[in-house]
Amino acid sequence: METILLLGGFGFIGSNMMDFIDNNLSQQYNVIVFDKVVHHPFDLNFKCVKKIYSGDFSDITCLEQIFDENKIDLILHFINTTVPSTSGNIKFDIQSNLISTIEFINLMIKAKVRKIIYLSSGGAIYGNSSEKKSESAQNYPQSSYGIVKLTVEKYLMLYSGQNLIDPLILRLSNPYGPYHFSMKQGIINVAIRSALEKKFFSVWGSGESLKDYIYIEDFAVILFRLVKLKINNTIINVGSEKMATVNYILSQVKNVYPNFTWNYVKAKNFDAEHFELNITKLKMLLGDYSFTSIEEGILKTNKWLINLNVKQ
Amino acid sequence: METILLLGGFGFIGSNMMDFIDNNLSQQYNVIVFDKVVHHPFDLNFKCVKKIYSGDFSDITCLEQIFDENKIDLILHFINTTVPSTSGNIKFDIQSNLISTIEFINLMIKAKVRKIIYLSSGGAIYGNSSEKKSESAQNYPQSSYGIVKLTVEKYLMLYSGQNLIDPLILRLSNPYGPYHFSMKQGIINVAIRSALEKKFFSVWGSGESLKDYIYIEDFAVILFRLVKLKINNTIINVGSEKMATVNYILSQVKNVYPNFTWNYVKAKNFDAEHFELNITKLKMLLGDYSFTSIEEGILKTNKWLINLNVKQ
Repeated sequence: METILLLGGFGFIGSNMMDFIDNNLSQQYNVIVFDKVVHHPFDLNFKCVKKIYSGDFSDITCLEQIFDENKIDLILHFINTTVPSTSGNIKFDIQSNLISTIEFINLMIKAKVRKIIYLSSGGAIYGNSSEKKSESAQNYPQSSYGIVKLTVEKYLMLYSGQNLIDPLILRLSNPYGPYHFSMKQGIINVAIRSALEKKFFSVWGSGESLKDYIYIEDFAVILFRLVKLKINNTIINVGSEKMATVNYILSQVKNVYPNFTWNYVKAKNFDAEHFELNITKLKMLLGDYSFTSIEEGILKTNKWLINLNVKQ
Repeated sequence: METILLLGGFGFIGSNMMDFIDNNLSQQYNVIVFDKVVHHPFDLNFKCVKKIYSGDFSDITCLEQIFDENKIDLILHFINTTVPSTSGNIKFDIQSNLISTIEFINLMIKAKVRKIIYLSSGGAIYGNSSEKKSESAQNYPQSSYGIVKLTVEKYLMLYSGQNLIDPLILRLSNPYGPYHFSMKQGIINVAIRSALEKKFFSVWGSGESLKDYIYIEDFAVILFRLVKLKINNTIINVGSEKMATVNYILSQVKNVYPNFTWNYVKAKNFDAEHFELNITKLKMLLGDYSFTSIEEGILKTNKWLINLNVKQ
């Protein structure tokens, strides 16, 4: 058994990792959760969880305690203290995301833990462009959130070059699916929940922005395959090539909830209008992988949400 | 008359800007110096200096006072609180360079000052490579110093994209010449001073690393030409294409000081081995410009140092 330290374990993506381990990898991994909250927001339990530490990511004493008390084999770093739209407080963004991550890396080096997977963001890093972005494309982040992600990547690669850690950086496209609870970002999830809860829904801009969306279970499969293949010290785009406009997504949600309606409001400038990832590198590493279609992903997400509502 | 706020005014590059203004642009510019020291380290006076503010770059109250008391037309940001070899204290590097710069930019926006020239570093940003680097090349900084420079650039371009400021980012190669006083970096200057003062000199590595060196007066000419041309909201490589190895430089210094000798020590990993800038963009903007050769630059620097020693 290997032990994963899951930073931000009770968030959307962290929860999916634990769900995936429970269903597929329960003989291989157990999980130590670090999160700012003590309980899962949906009051769910995951069998793979061995211990829970709760605290602020800037609380170095708490983080040090984790390394003192446990032998960690792999770290999944999914903590974001800001989102693109709230990253206007740049000083807070730098201190809480960048400096905290660097202090955390220093702790892992001290504890001789080498493997860390850092969740970066394709959309936030590459910026607005109609071109398909490969990992070597120029970066034009449109928000402090994106700049901080890019800077964390640079420090991880600096430490990698000094042979101190073996990071794997995943530049994810737009994930959606079960365990999502933010009403601030994640268009597919927010639209389905708005439709289910009969809430008003607003689209920023014309709804014609075209982006890559990935069903979160596909991401879990990919992440653990890359771990198994021992891929590290590199940056990989993780998208599905399933491109959709907001209007198309809303029409699919309306297929499920015919009464669902929305309006259009002026676009904010921190969001990419067009976002397409080149995933050649990922495909070379994984071989053929059949990604969940957006139509199917929306139906699965809806089913999960209805089940959750029934349980609660 | 326009007023320049010169951040780090009493440093090597700042001093050369003031010298250049005194000799060439005294009818156009006066200068407000901000520096951590109250007096110039060589006790020199520059005619263009109108006021001196001294303080720490993180002292936001002092910086705010400058904008309150003066109308600033152009800011030259030449402050570095670290050098590549001392940027191992990453938290200090981020706080004193990155966060301080962002707080400073917020002050300039509040004071409605739009023009800022930020001195970035080609060698620290592009990383080690035998390729000629254009402004759109990939960045592989080999030190925290380089990562912080790159991150400051990204924030400047973010604010530029939001139409809040008009930054000009200059990625300089290796400058040398008068007013240099560090004995930690700047191989040409340190070698000449070592020879002049009969001090022991050590070369890191084989001495065969090939780099672009620029005589600092050339940089002053270029900077003020770019200002005159109103070039901003962009990144420009500023090198001379005068490539030299350390061994060639040392042989030139030995021509002047036949008793000069040196030894070789193991190379540090934060320094680029090969560093060549593509300056096509600069040449397109400036037209033909005849750069000072390394041989001539070494002689001029030596002459300046001897004159300084005579005066003191």
